[in-house]
Amino acid sequence: MIIQKEITLKPKPRGFHLVTDEVISAVPEIRKIKTGILHIFIKHTSASLTINENADPTVRSDMEKHFSVIVPEDADYFEHTYEGPDDMTSHIKASLLGSSLLIPLSQGKLRIGTWQGIYLCEHRKKAEGRKIVITIIGE
Amino acid sequence: MIIQKEITLKPKPRGFHLVTDEVISAVPEIRKIKTGILHIFIKHTSASLTINENADPTVRSDMEKHFSVIVPEDADYFEHTYEGPDDMTSHIKASLLGSSLLIPLSQGKLRIGTWQGIYLCEHRKKAEGRKIVITIIGE
Amino acid sequence: MIIQKEITLKPKPRGFHLVTDEVISAVPEIRKIKTGILHIFIKHTSASLTINENADPTVRSDMEKHFSVIVPEDADYFEHTYEGPDDMTSHIKASLLGSSLLIPLSQGKLRIGTWQGIYLCEHRKKAEGRKIVITIIGE
Repeated sequence: MIIQKEITLKPKPRGFHLVTDEVISAVPEIRKIKTGILHIFIKHTSASLTINENADPTVRSDMEKHFSVIVPEDADYFEHTYEGPDDMTSHIKASLLGSSLLIPLSQGKLRIGTWQGIYLCEHRKKAEGRKIVITIIGE
Repeated sequence: MIIQKEITLKPKPRGFHLVTDEVISAVPEIRKIKTGILHIFIKHTSASLTINENADPTVRSDMEKHFSVIVPEDADYFEHTYEGPDDMTSHIKASLLGSSLLIPLSQGKLRIGTWQGIYLCEHRKKAEGRKIVITIIGE
Repeated sequence: MIIQKEITLKPKPRGFHLVTDEVISAVPEIRKIKTGILHIFIKHTSASLTINENADPTVRSDMEKHFSVIVPEDADYFEHTYEGPDDMTSHIKASLLGSSLLIPLSQGKLRIGTWQGIYLCEHRKKAEGRKIVITIIGE
């Protein structure tokens, strides 16, 4: 069985956001899968997806702080800054974190760790709701 | 054909570890697959998976050194350090490297380069054996 | 339906290169897929794959500049430099960016954003054409 669906996440401010529930509620078909995989792909190059701790919000705020240190907006060698200082830095952060996630499915649920959640990483100061394509392969 | 299995890797000290054999020996079903994919997912947020050179151990020790430089434990802006200086840094390293690998399968084997191997990246000073979910899709 | 194919990309100089057309033209079978996924795996540990902006070449040159800043060749702690200063740094860049991409397929086409393209990230000063394994799963 292959199911594919495109959804638009609610717009988020810059930072790292827990979106597990927003994603899962869009694909109730997951409940039908005994064994399989869930693929989530973001159709943008200045936002990304990652899996990390789902509990303490300081993980998300520390992530935002540290990624802005390793990809600093005041670096003087960036040329691609037409849309502002967060233009090129957002592209780099997107590639460091990645554009898709692949998660095992089992007995109608995500087979992830107790402390794991899906993050939308929004790297732009202002962005519309991000489009993601969800593909389920399973039986 | 979809096969899914959860295993616990032997506990490892902090660092980058070659686990290709430990992973493959847990799924002899790979031998039955003519064409397919192998998905490996780690159920933790302070350890990660990557593919890199399988020969010289200095690649693994240099990896450990460099990731500790780009995600330094003495950064003064981390709030999420309840479990020690390697708490938040482990979460960041996990997202930089990623929580899953997808590898092509062909003729009952991993279709990877001669010099490629699977690494478990253990970011905590002390950790129990890490749980991974292996999913095979193939025919 | 599962289709798998290995191709060799044309050799590229060090840097980030848009290879969407080179990859897609190698798998005309994509046109037959109504719904599915496309997996691209690179069989090397000193080059990597990522998805980023497909339009302005300064994104690619800024990427190259920034990755050489966060993984500097003059770091004095690298041991694995037998093949030159770009040896160990290439391995680290490869793991930061990743060895594979998974892209949704729909109606015979890649279901990606308007501004997204596939990048080959060549981290070595001199390299032969890189081998990639393409696997399509779909119906």
